[in-house]
Amino acid sequence: MIIDKLIDKINELNAPIVVGLDPRLSQIPNHIKESIYEEQGKTPAAAAAAIFAFNLAIINSIYDIIPAVKPQIAMYERFGPEGIACYRETVAYAKSKGLIVIGDIKRGDIASTAEAYSDAHLGKTDVEGEDIPIFDTDFITVNPYMGFDSIDPYLTDCEIYNKGLFVLVKTSNPSSSQIQDMITADGKPLYTHVGEMVDHWGRGLVGNHGFSSVGAVVGATHPAQGEELRELLPRTFFLVPGYGAQGGKATDLAGMLNKDGFGIIVNNSRGITGAYQTMKYKADDDDFADAAREALLDMKSDLEAHL
Amino acid sequence: MIIDKLIDKINELNAPIVVGLDPRLSQIPNHIKESIYEEQGKTPAAAAAAIFAFNLAIINSIYDIIPAVKPQIAMYERFGPEGIACYRETVAYAKSKGLIVIGDIKRGDIASTAEAYSDAHLGKTDVEGEDIPIFDTDFITVNPYMGFDSIDPYLTDCEIYNKGLFVLVKTSNPSSSQIQDMITADGKPLYTHVGEMVDHWGRGLVGNHGFSSVGAVVGATHPAQGEELRELLPRTFFLVPGYGAQGGKATDLAGMLNKDGFGIIVNNSRGITGAYQTMKYKADDDDFADAAREALLDMKSDLEAHL
Repeated sequence: MIIDKLIDKINELNAPIVVGLDPRLSQIPNHIKESIYEEQGKTPAAAAAAIFAFNLAIINSIYDIIPAVKPQIAMYERFGPEGIACYRETVAYAKSKGLIVIGDIKRGDIASTAEAYSDAHLGKTDVEGEDIPIFDTDFITVNPYMGFDSIDPYLTDCEIYNKGLFVLVKTSNPSSSQIQDMITADGKPLYTHVGEMVDHWGRGLVGNHGFSSVGAVVGATHPAQGEELRELLPRTFFLVPGYGAQGGKATDLAGMLNKDGFGIIVNNSRGITGAYQTMKYKADDDDFADAAREALLDMKSDLEAHL
Repeated sequence: MIIDKLIDKINELNAPIVVGLDPRLSQIPNHIKESIYEEQGKTPAAAAAAIFAFNLAIINSIYDIIPAVKPQIAMYERFGPEGIACYRETVAYAKSKGLIVIGDIKRGDIASTAEAYSDAHLGKTDVEGEDIPIFDTDFITVNPYMGFDSIDPYLTDCEIYNKGLFVLVKTSNPSSSQIQDMITADGKPLYTHVGEMVDHWGRGLVGNHGFSSVGAVVGATHPAQGEELRELLPRTFFLVPGYGAQGGKATDLAGMLNKDGFGIIVNNSRGITGAYQTMKYKADDDDFADAAREALLDMKSDLEAHL
């Protein structure tokens, strides 16, 4: 089961860490961009080529010390079809280096539409009897607002293709409180009910480590809620955004672990890929990939010290 | 304001109708597909080419009697980058025929990510100082689960670029009850609170007809909830899916109108584009576009008779 593979890799590398590949052009060193712009002009295709070159160098620099990467599809969709092609190539390259890939796509729609998304991202697309993998990520993030029938098509593909999901439960952004924290008639916040649904949806996909391939997104910026959700959902693995740039600290994460010290994978995007632009790692443009590795090793130490 | 343009077109054509362009390969006549497969093989690019040829014929057959079309991006994303290119070309062609285009994308993510989606779908993408339109739809659908800061970037682009949103409030699918109908501490269902948020988010974008360019998605399959939401949200325009194939009837829609008979645009996808495959319109493959027009005129009569 894919969740077992993820947990085994986390344990082997002692790194409950996923690096977000959410590239912005402002993050990409000029020496990468300029030669591409000279050849192609300042076009979406050129931007996509620059992003791919950047991702490739980052992946090459870090693939041996982390279990997974998480490309955020919006940062590729921003550049249209060429950006989406870059997303696909990034996923394929990361997988070729042995990384597990979590596609951060946050899709959510009625069943017949969810089937189309699931074909693209988890399963295969049928072109007149030819079953063709499109993005073929290991996990995707999905939005629960439309309820079970909008999630069910993904569950089917998780079984068939050995894939997994992370369902939004309590997200890292400040406004997550607006709907997710709404108190329901039984006195409990909405996110606890959504968490229970996620646990239920994933009950058929529990692996050898006791966790389900259907996990939850729980923000590092909400430690109390994270602890509450861990108690409520012992078999739900948490994908934890919000560490670093968004303000979440290693000490905020302890409550999200189970008694054996398992249960989370923590995302860091800009803090790793943009490390060379920060005061702490201030590096020459040429050394952006080395700075990413250094920042990642520091994050690993930070988590080791506090978890 | 874009909502005024939509309402003016609805009135001019006497058609509160949007045709969903959600093509499946099984819907596309063989005479279109076979010549493309012969040339290109059974590939995602060939599938995208077949879908574009189908969309083009459908649009040519109906553009003069409806105000808008709504391509569902999942049906294009299913075929990868080539599918996304087909989505873009479909949007551009529909706009060139004078149609308003509602991109059914249901995106939702934290602010920095929402900015990327908004660049792609409503605004422009900055490639080193060059502002480039990517999909450039008139409206998009978005998911509210992450709250205001996940919606705000779209509102900014709605102002700058004269665009609009439809926010999921009470969706047409059966499981929409699971989260959306949850009763909150004040005794009201969640969707009414979400509806009030949408009204609030759209208060700066109210046009001459008294409706905001920030509308709501409210399923035809929930007439009582639709009536309740109309009373609660007098300035919120409703995009109404679920008519036809999903079971919603014209008589279910009356309560969603305001006292002047305005306030909704009703979607029909398969019922129009797949009409030629149904018993009622049973037509030769060659006549699929004529059958779509005939089904659309029947839908128009049905709405006229009951609204």
